[in-house]
Amino acid sequence: MIWIDDRLVPESSASVSYMDRGYYFGDGIYEVFRVYGGRMYEADAHYERLERSAREIGLKLPYTRKETDAILVSLIEREKARNATIYMQVTRGVAPRSHAFPAGAKPVMMAYCNDTPRPTPTMEKGITAITRPDIRWLRCDLKTLNLLGSVLAKQEAAELGADDVILHRDGVVTECSASNLIIVKDGALHTHPADHLILHGITRAVVLRLARERGVEVRERPFTLEELRKADEAFLTSTIMEITPIVQIDGLPVGGGEPGPFTHRLQHDFEATIPHN
Amino acid sequence: MIWIDDRLVPESSASVSYMDRGYYFGDGIYEVFRVYGGRMYEADAHYERLERSAREIGLKLPYTRKETDAILVSLIEREKARNATIYMQVTRGVAPRSHAFPAGAKPVMMAYCNDTPRPTPTMEKGITAITRPDIRWLRCDLKTLNLLGSVLAKQEAAELGADDVILHRDGVVTECSASNLIIVKDGALHTHPADHLILHGITRAVVLRLARERGVEVRERPFTLEELRKADEAFLTSTIMEITPIVQIDGLPVGGGEPGPFTHRLQHDFEATIPHN
Repeated sequence: MIWIDDRLVPESSASVSYMDRGYYFGDGIYEVFRVYGGRMYEADAHYERLERSAREIGLKLPYTRKETDAILVSLIEREKARNATIYMQVTRGVAPRSHAFPAGAKPVMMAYCNDTPRPTPTMEKGITAITRPDIRWLRCDLKTLNLLGSVLAKQEAAELGADDVILHRDGVVTECSASNLIIVKDGALHTHPADHLILHGITRAVVLRLARERGVEVRERPFTLEELRKADEAFLTSTIMEITPIVQIDGLPVGGGEPGPFTHRLQHDFEATIPHN
Repeated sequence: MIWIDDRLVPESSASVSYMDRGYYFGDGIYEVFRVYGGRMYEADAHYERLERSAREIGLKLPYTRKETDAILVSLIEREKARNATIYMQVTRGVAPRSHAFPAGAKPVMMAYCNDTPRPTPTMEKGITAITRPDIRWLRCDLKTLNLLGSVLAKQEAAELGADDVILHRDGVVTECSASNLIIVKDGALHTHPADHLILHGITRAVVLRLARERGVEVRERPFTLEELRKADEAFLTSTIMEITPIVQIDGLPVGGGEPGPFTHRLQHDFEATIPHN
């Protein structure tokens, strides 16, 4: 079942207007929520980010946080979901094509819940990545539907047989195509500051908090491709991928070419924050 | 009537799948064709640009140029359009949400034709503009559905009572929110080169050709906000707005604050390229 435009409908009859601004401008925002054991994980952080994205693009959300939550919980219940993800997006609504905001258009929310197993195999083995220029716009902190830059980067990785892509602006590393990047060097974590050039990842925030609680130094600062190549460990963080080690970059091993001890410890600590399921 | 996914349907029943990649990634391209007197203007240039956009984002167009042309001509005929615009877009098709290109998805084309009078009043009077940072991605030469940067810029202009917005990267002027920008200084035209930072406008190309034919110097080079402020004349070019003078920028008059002689002459020359209607 899909929630769309104020009601729950079967997938087969879920359609949207060809005049939805999401369809011709990508004019909307989204969130992906994690469900563990039938319950949303860090739901408030996701709602806060959703509300910030909406505010920053001048979009009025169609429901209060409480109403939205009731809708998402009903999706989980309907699907009897245990480990799952909820995808939800809100567009600025249906209106004739004209760039400025339309008067009177009603935002359209779409949401669905899919079973999504935890990424255990990749968390254990790690993944490979290539590096590419970051050609995205300058508001990557907003979770908008303008994702073609990430799509093209990810496709390039796929065609080269890599699992993901690490983006950089003139040699300064930002993040991965759909996740944040953290490296370990001499016992400290380094990651791009949460400014307009990266998504303010919720898993990223949890991981940095866990590291600080363990007394590990965390440096939120831009670092270069050169530093990336010399990292002892590297991993990505995301709602879906959790903490996934990157063991090879541009064909060269990261550190010893296997997930490292800091990554392992953080995975272990992260695990402990997940309600039993 | 709307052409959508291989058939012509009434507007009321024209819908698209909520799983269309256009709807959640903005993963698609578009073109806007001008129709004068029932005939498409510079159609081949538009088809070439469409094919280039498709190629650059790795999207296979669903029809040959000849087939697409037959569809667009049938829209003109159905609407008995004289002065009109045809909007058409192609998305990568319907597939579960995953960044890399989906295997086997069929691209979806949507197209419609709307009566669109020539912008005679604004061509005569001119418009006002503000200047703002250009935060769009680094492939503005592609006509993709990732248009939120332009949407937000245009909205900012509207809220400040201006007609349009002139974008710049660190003080270097690129173009307007949905059109190219040309300035006149000491009898020469200056405009940003057709690289990855601006749309390769078809009206822009026609105007530069007309200017050269008149013996007017054309300099395709990046210019600064400072030079913009000292311009004798400024105008935008686009398929819909043709050659529209900009008479005020950030509250200050451009030149004498009225459309200038070079702009007038180019409007006149452009007029002569339009088939009688």
